[in-house]
Amino acid sequence: MFYHVKDLQFNARVSRPDPRFANLLLEQFGGENGELAAAMQYFTQAYGAKMPHPDKYDMLMDIAVEEFSHLEIVGATIQMLLKGVNGELKNAADESEIMQVMDGAEARENIIHQALTANPHFVTLSSGGPRLTNSQGIPWCASYIHSNGDLTVDLRSNLASESRAKLVYEHLMKFTDDPYVKETLSFLMTREVAHYKMFEAALETIQPNFPPGVLQADPRFTRQYFNMSPQASVRGPWNKGEMPDLGKDWDYVQDPIAYVQATEGLTVLDDAKEAELEEVAELDAKMSEIKSQEVIAAEPKGTAQWSTYQDSKQLNK
Amino acid sequence: MFYHVKDLQFNARVSRPDPRFANLLLEQFGGENGELAAAMQYFTQAYGAKMPHPDKYDMLMDIAVEEFSHLEIVGATIQMLLKGVNGELKNAADESEIMQVMDGAEARENIIHQALTANPHFVTLSSGGPRLTNSQGIPWCASYIHSNGDLTVDLRSNLASESRAKLVYEHLMKFTDDPYVKETLSFLMTREVAHYKMFEAALETIQPNFPPGVLQADPRFTRQYFNMSPQASVRGPWNKGEMPDLGKDWDYVQDPIAYVQATEGLTVLDDAKEAELEEVAELDAKMSEIKSQEVIAAEPKGTAQWSTYQDSKQLNK
Amino acid sequence: MFYHVKDLQFNARVSRPDPRFANLLLEQFGGENGELAAAMQYFTQAYGAKMPHPDKYDMLMDIAVEEFSHLEIVGATIQMLLKGVNGELKNAADESEIMQVMDGAEARENIIHQALTANPHFVTLSSGGPRLTNSQGIPWCASYIHSNGDLTVDLRSNLASESRAKLVYEHLMKFTDDPYVKETLSFLMTREVAHYKMFEAALETIQPNFPPGVLQADPRFTRQYFNMSPQASVRGPWNKGEMPDLGKDWDYVQDPIAYVQATEGLTVLDDAKEAELEEVAELDAKMSEIKSQEVIAAEPKGTAQWSTYQDSKQLNK
Amino acid sequence: MFYHVKDLQFNARVSRPDPRFANLLLEQFGGENGELAAAMQYFTQAYGAKMPHPDKYDMLMDIAVEEFSHLEIVGATIQMLLKGVNGELKNAADESEIMQVMDGAEARENIIHQALTANPHFVTLSSGGPRLTNSQGIPWCASYIHSNGDLTVDLRSNLASESRAKLVYEHLMKFTDDPYVKETLSFLMTREVAHYKMFEAALETIQPNFPPGVLQADPRFTRQYFNMSPQASVRGPWNKGEMPDLGKDWDYVQDPIAYVQATEGLTVLDDAKEAELEEVAELDAKMSEIKSQEVIAAEPKGTAQWSTYQDSKQLNK
Amino acid sequence: MFYHVKDLQFNARVSRPDPRFANLLLEQFGGENGELAAAMQYFTQAYGAKMPHPDKYDMLMDIAVEEFSHLEIVGATIQMLLKGVNGELKNAADESEIMQVMDGAEARENIIHQALTANPHFVTLSSGGPRLTNSQGIPWCASYIHSNGDLTVDLRSNLASESRAKLVYEHLMKFTDDPYVKETLSFLMTREVAHYKMFEAALETIQPNFPPGVLQADPRFTRQYFNMSPQASVRGPWNKGEMPDLGKDWDYVQDPIAYVQATEGLTVLDDAKEAELEEVAELDAKMSEIKSQEVIAAEPKGTAQWSTYQDSKQLNK
Amino acid sequence: MFYHVKDLQFNARVSRPDPRFANLLLEQFGGENGELAAAMQYFTQAYGAKMPHPDKYDMLMDIAVEEFSHLEIVGATIQMLLKGVNGELKNAADESEIMQVMDGAEARENIIHQALTANPHFVTLSSGGPRLTNSQGIPWCASYIHSNGDLTVDLRSNLASESRAKLVYEHLMKFTDDPYVKETLSFLMTREVAHYKMFEAALETIQPNFPPGVLQADPRFTRQYFNMSPQASVRGPWNKGEMPDLGKDWDYVQDPIAYVQATEGLTVLDDAKEAELEEVAELDAKMSEIKSQEVIAAEPKGTAQWSTYQDSKQLNK
Repeated sequence: MFYHVKDLQFNARVSRPDPRFANLLLEQFGGENGELAAAMQYFTQAYGAKMPHPDKYDMLMDIAVEEFSHLEIVGATIQMLLKGVNGELKNAADESEIMQVMDGAEARENIIHQALTANPHFVTLSSGGPRLTNSQGIPWCASYIHSNGDLTVDLRSNLASESRAKLVYEHLMKFTDDPYVKETLSFLMTREVAHYKMFEAALETIQPNFPPGVLQADPRFTRQYFNMSPQASVRGPWNKGEMPDLGKDWDYVQDPIAYVQATEGLTVLDDAKEAELEEVAELDAKMSEIKSQEVIAAEPKGTAQWSTYQDSKQLNK
Repeated sequence: MFYHVKDLQFNARVSRPDPRFANLLLEQFGGENGELAAAMQYFTQAYGAKMPHPDKYDMLMDIAVEEFSHLEIVGATIQMLLKGVNGELKNAADESEIMQVMDGAEARENIIHQALTANPHFVTLSSGGPRLTNSQGIPWCASYIHSNGDLTVDLRSNLASESRAKLVYEHLMKFTDDPYVKETLSFLMTREVAHYKMFEAALETIQPNFPPGVLQADPRFTRQYFNMSPQASVRGPWNKGEMPDLGKDWDYVQDPIAYVQATEGLTVLDDAKEAELEEVAELDAKMSEIKSQEVIAAEPKGTAQWSTYQDSKQLNK
Repeated sequence: MFYHVKDLQFNARVSRPDPRFANLLLEQFGGENGELAAAMQYFTQAYGAKMPHPDKYDMLMDIAVEEFSHLEIVGATIQMLLKGVNGELKNAADESEIMQVMDGAEARENIIHQALTANPHFVTLSSGGPRLTNSQGIPWCASYIHSNGDLTVDLRSNLASESRAKLVYEHLMKFTDDPYVKETLSFLMTREVAHYKMFEAALETIQPNFPPGVLQADPRFTRQYFNMSPQASVRGPWNKGEMPDLGKDWDYVQDPIAYVQATEGLTVLDDAKEAELEEVAELDAKMSEIKSQEVIAAEPKGTAQWSTYQDSKQLNK
Repeated sequence: MFYHVKDLQFNARVSRPDPRFANLLLEQFGGENGELAAAMQYFTQAYGAKMPHPDKYDMLMDIAVEEFSHLEIVGATIQMLLKGVNGELKNAADESEIMQVMDGAEARENIIHQALTANPHFVTLSSGGPRLTNSQGIPWCASYIHSNGDLTVDLRSNLASESRAKLVYEHLMKFTDDPYVKETLSFLMTREVAHYKMFEAALETIQPNFPPGVLQADPRFTRQYFNMSPQASVRGPWNKGEMPDLGKDWDYVQDPIAYVQATEGLTVLDDAKEAELEEVAELDAKMSEIKSQEVIAAEPKGTAQWSTYQDSKQLNK
Repeated sequence: MFYHVKDLQFNARVSRPDPRFANLLLEQFGGENGELAAAMQYFTQAYGAKMPHPDKYDMLMDIAVEEFSHLEIVGATIQMLLKGVNGELKNAADESEIMQVMDGAEARENIIHQALTANPHFVTLSSGGPRLTNSQGIPWCASYIHSNGDLTVDLRSNLASESRAKLVYEHLMKFTDDPYVKETLSFLMTREVAHYKMFEAALETIQPNFPPGVLQADPRFTRQYFNMSPQASVRGPWNKGEMPDLGKDWDYVQDPIAYVQATEGLTVLDDAKEAELEEVAELDAKMSEIKSQEVIAAEPKGTAQWSTYQDSKQLNK
Repeated sequence: MFYHVKDLQFNARVSRPDPRFANLLLEQFGGENGELAAAMQYFTQAYGAKMPHPDKYDMLMDIAVEEFSHLEIVGATIQMLLKGVNGELKNAADESEIMQVMDGAEARENIIHQALTANPHFVTLSSGGPRLTNSQGIPWCASYIHSNGDLTVDLRSNLASESRAKLVYEHLMKFTDDPYVKETLSFLMTREVAHYKMFEAALETIQPNFPPGVLQADPRFTRQYFNMSPQASVRGPWNKGEMPDLGKDWDYVQDPIAYVQATEGLTVLDDAKEAELEEVAELDAKMSEIKSQEVIAAEPKGTAQWSTYQDSKQLNK
């Protein structure tokens, strides 16, 4: 069950209205790397984690709820950056004066003109409040979130999400010189970094966590690097020497077309990998047993019940 | 700031897995009339309400947070209805047996087969958990929500939203015979009715609340009913007799083509409405003054600050 | 069958081109609260209404067709506001002069510059005509419409839709000082108010119409108001005293966490509601019988045929 | 102004309910090649055509309005194919019996089961009516339409649209054996062919109509065929011999990589094309003058007015 | 298998940064008529063509790959038009100076200000690179492509697509005066014309290719032209005289409402068409036999294998 | 410039048609974690990488082109899994027999019935070929890709993308028992693992790469873990002890509401962090200088030119 206190987690303040920055800030309200995306990603991931991993469930819910609280902060900042717009719009009968201002020299100072220029929806649809879109008006969409029911995958999705969110805040900070807004952005940006570290630590507690998921890689196809854009090619640790942590060397395919032809579409390969294939099959079977039992053992027999209402009694004592 | 306790608001339970119903229930998780849509609608409306209407802000946040809590209940129910799917998928190496089951007589009993048939994403993307889509896989989208920065409009949007959500729950209840699930649905359906009543009462406290917004209707065009589909026409209170609450009669345009031609596109109308037009202009000016002052007076001068951190201190005492 | 006369329902005129306002006006052409949304909403609702409610079918088609006619007016106005753009673009070979104008002092006066700035698609995709998008270029989408096959719900959706559409016109009117355009907007805005009254009157003729749909609310969960955001809480008619029209009092849950815990997720409730539950079950059965028979009785046995071609013969006599 | 008579353009009938086919038929109601897409495409194209080409405006409106009338036919057929669904859903209290039927042997005969299986939205959202989506539930979207303000382009878009729509009807006809439905589909499919012929004839009246738009092709880059997928290459009229209607031969680039390198990215080309370039520049200037004047001359000076209300007076005489 | 050389097909150059034009150019990178849309359309069409029509498969892949190469050119041009943006953003700590510039007189000269104004995503999401959206930020979407598994339809879709793409380039050329950029656009525009001619030639080699698909038109409904918008009607080759290539005359329905009534929804028609109906049925059967055998005969029995790896061996010799 | 050889990179084969699996496999053709998403993500990232990091540009293009080649393999497999569908559809006149089969006992064996059941678009829109959608018909959308112009972010996005893609292939492998298809999937799944390792190695070569982007975290907000869901809380390395690699301890906020109140929204914090703040500011300035110079120095002065056409000359020698 969710709960709400009206104070913001961070004391968001705004020195003066700035509709242009309000519009930019929509990226973190209803944008692809924004706070709602983060909140919904961790919230939906938490369902799958609960049964076998109540510790990760707790962490995911803690962070999801913090992201909802950040969503609230971003929305509040946008609303304050648009101060004056709603009042002007409510003055619905007095349109002529505004038009004179808008086309004249005072346009840049006029809040309605600024809002209209920054985002037409501020003056036609939201009446000076945040909309759940990005800075170009694209409605927030659940395609933005990644939730796949496997923690070795989900936590990696989260490391990437936090990285992107951090970068967007870094970019946003260049476009305001309001010290209050900057401080709020600094708080929000930093929390993405903190969450990154939490997810990194959590992923580390799951072993093995590579490859993501359950199955091993097929040893016949693991090592080749295909030089598909052969001009001005560069060799580096990603295609030369030892593969990270795998104890094997990269196999650089200089001329992929010839290689594919010679191997009849990679079906005629070195026999030495047969033994490896068998090892992988054994490991796959073992990991499948372990991972599936982990989930199955955690699920109750018979009627399923989500909550016991015991902990909360203790909590309230 | 949001906060969370792990117990669900309602004690959701599930007697046995049912992926087909899990998929239907996605309508209320990530669908157009579902709980996330409701939660985000009221949450975004609350921003605009806070300044001039702290009482409505409180109500909108109370209900928004309850809807988030319902979202959690729906998701938990879906997760329980999919019990067994995640465990089977983690048994990744053992595919041959499953295929035999899936194509044989036992297919209907097999949880993976049921899940695959109900929604391919249960077995490819979410690994047996809820996804933020509707029952046909369409990702949730912020176009579903209506938030327009005017309470006489927003509260009406909410009456409609609650009506639709209630109807969807009513329909869903026909497709399960699990008494636990039925009870959960009965709770959720009923809360939509309760919220309807709250919004209705709130709208009543704002006077006048019609027409929605600030401006009056133009008296020249208010009363005509255009009979645009003239065959088998029916006369009823919506086009005959007195208009509801307006003290005026409907003006039934039997033959719109002829009428439009005769009035040169409605520009040559009865002079008697000139006086009415002036009255409306006066009323518009007055309402604009009142409504815009209401907002402007509520907004702080200078630096804006969202929270005072005073109430929460008292709350915690 | 639809039919068309080339004269507009309202005599739309434009004093001078204004691409910026043309772009804003797209909200009511291809936007979420615009004329196409209204037309398609009532048009699709009409299908379900036809059988048991031919009177409402007639009304929905009358209004749907008027909304299509308004769509045409809005599009014609946009086209006129963009006068000059198509001609300039057709002068395809003469690009250099335009670039000089665009970057120089005359830019504000140049119609191509105005169109480019207002909406890049005016000069790249539509060649100076309306596109079926909103003012930020989002293509119109059928997610905007609500059509649920139950008039007690659909008519409420329509009250909300008309309210929103009215507000958007009210806002748009602030951004033009062309008296012809203003008059067109005043007409269109007012018709939304008129339609509102039609739908309100129609809903009133269906009794009972609350709760929407068929089923009653569950008496165990109807009355609670959960104080989910407990700081700075306000009591008002939406959570205090008598519920509107229900003859029952609100039940204010001051501390929802404690309440949920004490009632084990609302499953341990006051016994006094058992009798109420039975009454509701009886009422549900009765309403189900009435409402389903109403539909079933109206449907023809055997082959279904939509039209009889009798009325039109009479109409043409 | 639109107008409506309740009789369908074609006498659509249905022998018996068939939810599966109802779902397929959604392709032509709310799908990418369906009737709404056609109607809105021609309707929006008509705006741009009106000024310089009132004859094409008339044709586009005639066909657009016929497509709206076809949309109505498709929707009516879907509604009749779902007969029984709405009535069952209204019987909201009686859920247990349905569940027994649905899981038992009678499931295939039961209309609710059929509807649920065909499309979950038939039983949760539309209550047995058409929704403005395709057969997989994707909401209709204005990205489906092509309207670009140039008749040499728009009419070609229409030839393609009609071709696709015809093919979809052809495919649909394989999935019903109801003779009434087949006849309706035969009518609808054939009208796409008829419209194709209308657009073809109209395009022919505009001369020159190639290249589409105003500008000529650049003679330096017109003739090359790049053999980008060089294996198993085939020579045919599209890369060998004379180009259709241009009096020039294809220039087959056997080895594009070598050619690009040798020409430094096509910048070092045969000098003989200089003269051609100048001819093209002259032709471009001339066509620009003609085409832009055609539009500009057709636009009124001063106030723009869409309708004169003269023709309709005559029409009604 | 795809392959890549780092040199562009055309030597794209840019004289100086121009974020406004970079944004416009996104239309051809991630827009509805852009290069990705073309590439993916032909690439997906090629799958269906391969079996019965290896010659068309070769052509479609040749052109698809050229369109991918054009996509690369467009993206490279956008990246060059945004030179300076990434470097400024990386200077993340130095925000104050930029704000002074942005609000002052130098704003127009400042690359960050230009980029922000042109497209907020250039400075928040892509850091000065191309995004796969159109010029208004709408993400590229596969709804843009048409691929229907029938060459008589697909090739017509391609003629339309090339026409639209050509027009967009024509429009874009008006908005830059950079001679290098103009030359690139001239190349890209011209290739659309060249592809048009290739598709035209290919369609001609398939006989008969009308009507598109397999089935003939129903002779009862082929010839009528419905005068659905009867005011100011115009007669032309599209509704008067002989239909193109069909040897039949248009049948002009002056008053569609009366005609539909008189024919009871077109079901009571002239008997003379019975014979025609039979001819059509025979032709349909014959064409079905031919067309289906053409595909079936081309498909291998037993295991399907896409590639033989023989041709490439020869290619490399 | 792209190039294509008709042989697939992997020798994809299919033992027998299986439309159900063809539909599932669409996830990796047009789905959110599929091959097009990967290809377009790396392709668009490459633009930003080219200037300062030609080595990463080479790697991104190599992998992007391999992903395009995988897209081709997936599409070819889908086409082969649908063998028979196109031929049946072309047999357009012979509909009655199919209907008999479809409703009878042979339905499960009939390829058209299987295709219709698996995905209605296989029989209405694509005629038995792949469509650029996921398994539920959602068109591919560029929102799926992440490309942010900063390699420390982009490479992390890629690690997550490869993890998700690997998991989807793992899941898909459970739903086919065709050994040829399994082998293709094993190849494709394994390549995701190989790419993961390439991106990991590449990220390692950029130092420092944490935090992602340029700016350091704000020391005032880096360490707190907010216990936002306080029931059944768990302590682990993500909120207890030392933060990974940072040499600092987590600061566990047991009661966030009280903490926020006591710190007035985190604005009244421990003074000890002032010194840290200054250090961070210095580091930010230094990193900004380094990172921005890295980009600026790599950009050419004056005219920008993408390709030199020198390397390809050498390549062809």
